[in-house]
Amino acid sequence: MRPTGKLHLGHVVGALKNWVELQERYRSFHFIADWHALTSDFADTSEIDQFRTEMMIDWLAAGLDPQKSVLFVQSAVPEHAELHLLFSMITPLGWLERVPTYKEQRDNVIDKDLGNYGFLGYPVLQAADILMYRADAVPVGEDQVPHVELTREIGRRFNSLYGQVFPEPQALLTPVPRLPGLDGRKMSKSYGNDISLSDSPETIHAKVRTMMTDPARKRRHDPGNPELCPVFSYHKIYSSRETQATVDRECRTAGIGCVECKKWMSDGLVRELSPLLERRRDYAGRRQEIGEIIEDGNRRAAQEAGETMQAVRQAMKMT
Amino acid sequence: MRPTGKLHLGHVVGALKNWVELQERYRSFHFIADWHALTSDFADTSEIDQFRTEMMIDWLAAGLDPQKSVLFVQSAVPEHAELHLLFSMITPLGWLERVPTYKEQRDNVIDKDLGNYGFLGYPVLQAADILMYRADAVPVGEDQVPHVELTREIGRRFNSLYGQVFPEPQALLTPVPRLPGLDGRKMSKSYGNDISLSDSPETIHAKVRTMMTDPARKRRHDPGNPELCPVFSYHKIYSSRETQATVDRECRTAGIGCVECKKWMSDGLVRELSPLLERRRDYAGRRQEIGEIIEDGNRRAAQEAGETMQAVRQAMKMT
Repeated sequence: MRPTGKLHLGHVVGALKNWVELQERYRSFHFIADWHALTSDFADTSEIDQFRTEMMIDWLAAGLDPQKSVLFVQSAVPEHAELHLLFSMITPLGWLERVPTYKEQRDNVIDKDLGNYGFLGYPVLQAADILMYRADAVPVGEDQVPHVELTREIGRRFNSLYGQVFPEPQALLTPVPRLPGLDGRKMSKSYGNDISLSDSPETIHAKVRTMMTDPARKRRHDPGNPELCPVFSYHKIYSSRETQATVDRECRTAGIGCVECKKWMSDGLVRELSPLLERRRDYAGRRQEIGEIIEDGNRRAAQEAGETMQAVRQAMKMT
Repeated sequence: MRPTGKLHLGHVVGALKNWVELQERYRSFHFIADWHALTSDFADTSEIDQFRTEMMIDWLAAGLDPQKSVLFVQSAVPEHAELHLLFSMITPLGWLERVPTYKEQRDNVIDKDLGNYGFLGYPVLQAADILMYRADAVPVGEDQVPHVELTREIGRRFNSLYGQVFPEPQALLTPVPRLPGLDGRKMSKSYGNDISLSDSPETIHAKVRTMMTDPARKRRHDPGNPELCPVFSYHKIYSSRETQATVDRECRTAGIGCVECKKWMSDGLVRELSPLLERRRDYAGRRQEIGEIIEDGNRRAAQEAGETMQAVRQAMKMT
């Protein structure tokens, strides 16, 4: 996860909840991808350090357990840079130019300079990140599947040139519920439509009151369609089945208004988030401990990375 | 210098002699560029390790002094990979695509796969190599001047984004005599037209006897033009002024034949090379000492690289 800003509810629902479950079944590695942040945000690095700490606090608050998962900072394990360099030698330019997210972002992102060598090589660095821990599985969203495929290609090419070192990691596609932003678009801090993990309950209630609803329901007595309403997406996650059924029925018949419906939802949301928000406040006051947790994770990651690089250098006969 | 094969006379005349003089006036760093060797020779790394040792032996035999110069192996200082990664983030693709040697080699080299990401990024790695030691000057040939220019651009871009860390290294263009291969083309092991530093005096004499001469001088009594004769290029370096004058006169008047002229030259060549060849044989029998010299150079380079990277990480606020 790239430390380019504060985490929001979309990160919890889309990734962290899943990671917390996975750590019970897998030996997991999660890292704060500060070098990756540079591919698009090299022009202003002034907040990266702060974001790294905040991100670790968010992870811990969300339930990642540093005893079960190795939680670390990418740039603290310079082996990632070395493996990236070695992979760069065997990765055809064409493979990178054809990555769907590359073309899409070059065409669509206009407020950032994505014309640099490192942005094209983003998937090479990702391959190094994944293969460094000889991962069997990578929990990703649909849009990242081509990157995991490319990682397999690079690993396969390495193995065929120098001998078997890397396994073939599989994309672990876990279906996650869709959680739109306040305005119905994808939740993103840069859109100003997010619910942040550092928001207070009052702020959350206030934000929910401004949420977009079914645009066809203009007046109180117009019937609505919950399937078209972002608020209902939240109900599906944060309300009881009973409340969901009531909302579904009463919205379609204009039995309840949006104000009331939102109130029910934000009550459930705040109730479910409370323990996380509380743990977050608690961790935020223990900076030194956070620093120690990061140090310990870095150390464990570096140990694993060192073993992989030894195998890599031996395979390449460059010890 | 890339460890892609045994060194030959062209390396001595074109670079090593110059380096040996420079070490008297500069605090010098020279490295065996084994990662760079991968940009074109990734497909077979089986000989890199042997070439690294042979290269260090050649350097020492040519007069590089490990007390004066820091002589090391690139891959033993992983900071180069880290700085390369950071520079990759701020280097526009267009800068790399416009490097003259890039286009030229992509168009002309047909027996190697140069279509990889790392080959495009060759000058980024070079910039990291140079700026890592905050070099003021880089001894290069004419064809490498655009790379030093690009290094300055990358350093300047870093400085303007994050604050002054790097000086602006200048290309140190030292005029070196042209030393063609046995067939008059550029000397290269891959052309099979080289005089190797591991050749015996007998082999050198034999090779010189096969050398191409002025093609217009077909028969013994045809007059020749020394300026068109590769053998004369060697006379200019390895014969006395007196012999040079005699050859120049007697060739143009067909006073001497090519066999005699070559004999005079190879006598001078073997005489001048003898101390180097002898030192080479001597060092070649002291492998353990060579290993210690490399270790010591690696350690000194790593110390300097560590200090630079600390300054880099501080400037980027990513300590």
